[in-house]
Amino acid sequence: MRVGVLTGGGDCPGLNAVIRAVVRKGVQEYGHEFTGFRDGWRGLLDGRSVRLDIPAVRGILPRGGTILGSSRTNPLKEEDGVARIRQTLAEQRIEALITIGGEDTLGVAARLCADHAVRCVGVPKTIDNDLSATDYTFGFDTAVNIATEAIDRLHTTAESHMRVLVVEVMGRHAGWIALHSGLAGGANVILIPEQRFDVDQVCAWVNSRFRASYAPIVVVAEGAMPKDGDLVLKDGSLDSFGHVRLSGVGEWLSKEIERRTGNEARTTVLGHVQRGGTPSAFDRWLATRFGLHAVDAVHEGDFGTMVALRGTDIVRVPLAQATARLKTVNPELYAEVGVFFG
Amino acid sequence: MRVGVLTGGGDCPGLNAVIRAVVRKGVQEYGHEFTGFRDGWRGLLDGRSVRLDIPAVRGILPRGGTILGSSRTNPLKEEDGVARIRQTLAEQRIEALITIGGEDTLGVAARLCADHAVRCVGVPKTIDNDLSATDYTFGFDTAVNIATEAIDRLHTTAESHMRVLVVEVMGRHAGWIALHSGLAGGANVILIPEQRFDVDQVCAWVNSRFRASYAPIVVVAEGAMPKDGDLVLKDGSLDSFGHVRLSGVGEWLSKEIERRTGNEARTTVLGHVQRGGTPSAFDRWLATRFGLHAVDAVHEGDFGTMVALRGTDIVRVPLAQATARLKTVNPELYAEVGVFFG
Amino acid sequence: MRVGVLTGGGDCPGLNAVIRAVVRKGVQEYGHEFTGFRDGWRGLLDGRSVRLDIPAVRGILPRGGTILGSSRTNPLKEEDGVARIRQTLAEQRIEALITIGGEDTLGVAARLCADHAVRCVGVPKTIDNDLSATDYTFGFDTAVNIATEAIDRLHTTAESHMRVLVVEVMGRHAGWIALHSGLAGGANVILIPEQRFDVDQVCAWVNSRFRASYAPIVVVAEGAMPKDGDLVLKDGSLDSFGHVRLSGVGEWLSKEIERRTGNEARTTVLGHVQRGGTPSAFDRWLATRFGLHAVDAVHEGDFGTMVALRGTDIVRVPLAQATARLKTVNPELYAEVGVFFG
Amino acid sequence: MRVGVLTGGGDCPGLNAVIRAVVRKGVQEYGHEFTGFRDGWRGLLDGRSVRLDIPAVRGILPRGGTILGSSRTNPLKEEDGVARIRQTLAEQRIEALITIGGEDTLGVAARLCADHAVRCVGVPKTIDNDLSATDYTFGFDTAVNIATEAIDRLHTTAESHMRVLVVEVMGRHAGWIALHSGLAGGANVILIPEQRFDVDQVCAWVNSRFRASYAPIVVVAEGAMPKDGDLVLKDGSLDSFGHVRLSGVGEWLSKEIERRTGNEARTTVLGHVQRGGTPSAFDRWLATRFGLHAVDAVHEGDFGTMVALRGTDIVRVPLAQATARLKTVNPELYAEVGVFFG
Repeated sequence: MRVGVLTGGGDCPGLNAVIRAVVRKGVQEYGHEFTGFRDGWRGLLDGRSVRLDIPAVRGILPRGGTILGSSRTNPLKEEDGVARIRQTLAEQRIEALITIGGEDTLGVAARLCADHAVRCVGVPKTIDNDLSATDYTFGFDTAVNIATEAIDRLHTTAESHMRVLVVEVMGRHAGWIALHSGLAGGANVILIPEQRFDVDQVCAWVNSRFRASYAPIVVVAEGAMPKDGDLVLKDGSLDSFGHVRLSGVGEWLSKEIERRTGNEARTTVLGHVQRGGTPSAFDRWLATRFGLHAVDAVHEGDFGTMVALRGTDIVRVPLAQATARLKTVNPELYAEVGVFFG
Repeated sequence: MRVGVLTGGGDCPGLNAVIRAVVRKGVQEYGHEFTGFRDGWRGLLDGRSVRLDIPAVRGILPRGGTILGSSRTNPLKEEDGVARIRQTLAEQRIEALITIGGEDTLGVAARLCADHAVRCVGVPKTIDNDLSATDYTFGFDTAVNIATEAIDRLHTTAESHMRVLVVEVMGRHAGWIALHSGLAGGANVILIPEQRFDVDQVCAWVNSRFRASYAPIVVVAEGAMPKDGDLVLKDGSLDSFGHVRLSGVGEWLSKEIERRTGNEARTTVLGHVQRGGTPSAFDRWLATRFGLHAVDAVHEGDFGTMVALRGTDIVRVPLAQATARLKTVNPELYAEVGVFFG
Repeated sequence: MRVGVLTGGGDCPGLNAVIRAVVRKGVQEYGHEFTGFRDGWRGLLDGRSVRLDIPAVRGILPRGGTILGSSRTNPLKEEDGVARIRQTLAEQRIEALITIGGEDTLGVAARLCADHAVRCVGVPKTIDNDLSATDYTFGFDTAVNIATEAIDRLHTTAESHMRVLVVEVMGRHAGWIALHSGLAGGANVILIPEQRFDVDQVCAWVNSRFRASYAPIVVVAEGAMPKDGDLVLKDGSLDSFGHVRLSGVGEWLSKEIERRTGNEARTTVLGHVQRGGTPSAFDRWLATRFGLHAVDAVHEGDFGTMVALRGTDIVRVPLAQATARLKTVNPELYAEVGVFFG
Repeated sequence: MRVGVLTGGGDCPGLNAVIRAVVRKGVQEYGHEFTGFRDGWRGLLDGRSVRLDIPAVRGILPRGGTILGSSRTNPLKEEDGVARIRQTLAEQRIEALITIGGEDTLGVAARLCADHAVRCVGVPKTIDNDLSATDYTFGFDTAVNIATEAIDRLHTTAESHMRVLVVEVMGRHAGWIALHSGLAGGANVILIPEQRFDVDQVCAWVNSRFRASYAPIVVVAEGAMPKDGDLVLKDGSLDSFGHVRLSGVGEWLSKEIERRTGNEARTTVLGHVQRGGTPSAFDRWLATRFGLHAVDAVHEGDFGTMVALRGTDIVRVPLAQATARLKTVNPELYAEVGVFFG
């Protein structure tokens, strides 16, 4: 069988581990042949591909990013997108596709599979961990470790100087990275997109921490928003979502805390550092097992499915589930970690 | 309520995170008071304890080891052990115990709870991940990351020189660390205690790897054993389990591979490096949540239970389950990773 | 002999290693007694101190920050500052001071020693490495390693996506951290405070890198400034040094590159992460040897001196040299690394 | 000008950084062309080479090992070795050679240059830091950091359990790695090849440490030897240098300490882990600058020289100096760190 592989969306540690596992097992155990499409759906539209044999995937396990490149191209929004994809598949005699990506990439795969008879198996990927169909996505553990290590380092300053330390981490729509790294790093405040924050409450936690003679560490997800947009607007420092983006919520919050509490604040913005570099052992394990099971699904002809983690097992769920619902931090869990605030 | 806390068995990254979470939540939310017993059951026998209030647990989250000390003392094997424990509890007016430990420690807790009305809640701990009642134990992820990083480094030499590189990792009875780190590190052979290995098969994998112009990396759990004890005995290099221990199975295997294949082999023995240092973010998250839920169980009077991980949830299971069955690597899972051998 | 120890200025990995070495050698070899003053010169003004014996310095070698605390207090600017210091020294019968700090702290020590007969030995400390009297200061190597690791991670994204990645690192007046981490991390542009940068030249390098199909990584020291303030002013985004600080030069430069090249840019601001956490092995070695030699200088009565690194030797130089001249990146060295730009 | 490049001897983090710097500067600034010979002198004997242009050296800066491969081949001991080298150089019209290696590789280069008119510039490389002509060699700082991190982790166990922890690090003839990592890691005993050790003295330090209620950490260089070979011989466990190698001096010493003190001991043998993986920032800086200056020397026709570090400067010294004298730890320096033993 000839099988295509593509990676879509933002980069994420573990993509290469999936590709390697797919090819190793598919070639060795099933005798399949693999073609990698360049830059996500873009390569399938344009017919740009590379051969994926065992030498091609050697040494890529510990490498971040994706050897296939990626893009945010949505072929369903391109003129003749579906036709061009079907043509590429026909020309290259590709019988099945393994699509590795997030909500967008898998949503396209689900549509192609359901409506256009393109035989797809999905592998879920998002550094934000916000796909509801799986316990965890790979890349997330790596990002959390990087953010936690940064918070660990800030504690040194927190013990020696009386400054507020604000760390902005990834998470536009879900606060998983902030929650896990903030808890693991022993942060004194954790702010997530799921719940608008009250700057005065943040300042109260900050002051309470200072009273214990330690400097406070505030972890804020990039998508977290203050409760009262109006109040903020009056300062001239935030008039819209776009304006916050100008300097980021972390920088904005530092200024607000300085203004309201009179304490100096310093900001760290980790940015893409969180999604780069070598995957953690957990992410390599998860990504590899996803790859092994995805190729099993292809081999068994179980299309329209996606691999997912349930406990310690890899299971298959319908592809449509991948995009059914954003997995956000529920209020109970957020409350559970609130015992460490202040 | 006055609650005692103790840590037993070998050290394991995350113990301090459990203690901190127990105290933070117990004091702040429930108003309990906490006493830490020194050196596991030993401190309970001898009445040696320290007060655990919030300042006492400050800053311990990222620190490996246990601020309470540990021991392998089994009070059920000490003269008047149960009576002495009951006396200490009475004198210090301790109404419940949170016992953090592995099979041995939790086995004692189960017995004390069932037979002697000592009110216990357990928190499972083993770096080897071999407790069947929980998806994962804390400490394991840290150990796997350390071993994986070591294997990553060996690949550099494997690419530049033609040497066999043998890494001995922890795991006396279960091969979880070898399996996870070997997979994550891209090892060419993984040997676990669950399945006796055939040295000739190992040499065949080694030679097959050399033919691809890369040097092989062999990961071996400290408890892995060769298939044919007799064969080995004849070499004069292994006459009993004890003799293998003299130099360790890693060193022994290196010599055998050198002898049988004619290739140079080098050994790395990570030893206690795997169980030390700061816990990974995952282990801190898991240990902290175990602590939060253990104190909930105490507060609700749900004794004779143990906290456990199921998927992403913390649940309670009977303490007796902790020791019911060693969780070993099952043959299907071991076969799954076999695609990467050679 | 009774000897006082203090740490002044910003925190810096290695301070504790100096303190430990001073105490270990001073107590064991010379039988001296040590007193640590809290929060730099502030503790000496207020008579706040702690006893420093061998148990007090146990386990502090790998810990960032300073167990003594620090401050930026300049006693020469305090009312009766010198008199209060002399009084504290007399009351506590302190015969000599080991002062660990940067330009400010050591400048005060030099003055006290020269003008007021306070017997001082200095240990140079600055994470920025900008003291001319010594080859390196401790803390610098740690900061460079942290920044380099962050740049390494960004390469993953640089290989998979076509975005400009801007990293702002420490260095208000000297570009050593930017230069070393930029070189070690393989950055495509390095901007330092010593030489005002031309945004158009930066954009030219960025575009040249894109033409090689890789995304550019730009490392900018926090104190780097664009050449043409006026041009910038017209954008309304930079009207003074203070205004750049609002969002930092990194964020500002990202916006400018986006505006001028049309490419997306992402910013990482490492902030205090660079000065926290455990010191690198080199910094522990250097800080420890500085401590050992500082206590030798005290023992030999060689006051008014400062320890310094020359090659692999620790030497003594006059304290006044510490503040004589800021050690900045010279144009030849900056030109040497220019071969890697673009 | 056509310039050849080769790497000889054991692998060492930073080799690729040298190659990259040589090619980047040589091509961009001087317009030279570069040829890399495979597997050290072996490739020059056999005429196996690859073209080294700028794309060929892209992305190699952070990678350990050497893209050219290495060997221990000594062409002066091969039949017609010199003639074959001269023939390869003539056929490929190579006018100069940059030889990157240790004592052996540079010794050959010195001879070829002096006696056979092969125009060579040397770059010193040894992970053991035992070349007297340069303050430091690249690779050493990386190895010391890895060993120090391992020792750091062992402290966790040392604080929780009463076990002796023995770490064997690299260093056959010189104790630099043991000395630096032992000091940086806060070891209680450091044993180096330069000075035979007295096992009873080691046991005395071990016991003294136990009395302070901490477990001792013993760092031993692989080439360290006990004082009294005879005593050891009687145990049947060490009859010659070769026999120690059977299990390594670390394992041997653990057994001896157990036997003599009655305390349990555990061994860690880091092995090739120390020479693998990505170079530290310092090593990348040093290796890159060595490369830049080596290509300058070639360009200026300054053959028979080697680049070297003096303080913060890169200088040139005669190639013959590289092999003049092994740089070992002098007794004064070893005595300086002795204050931390026990």
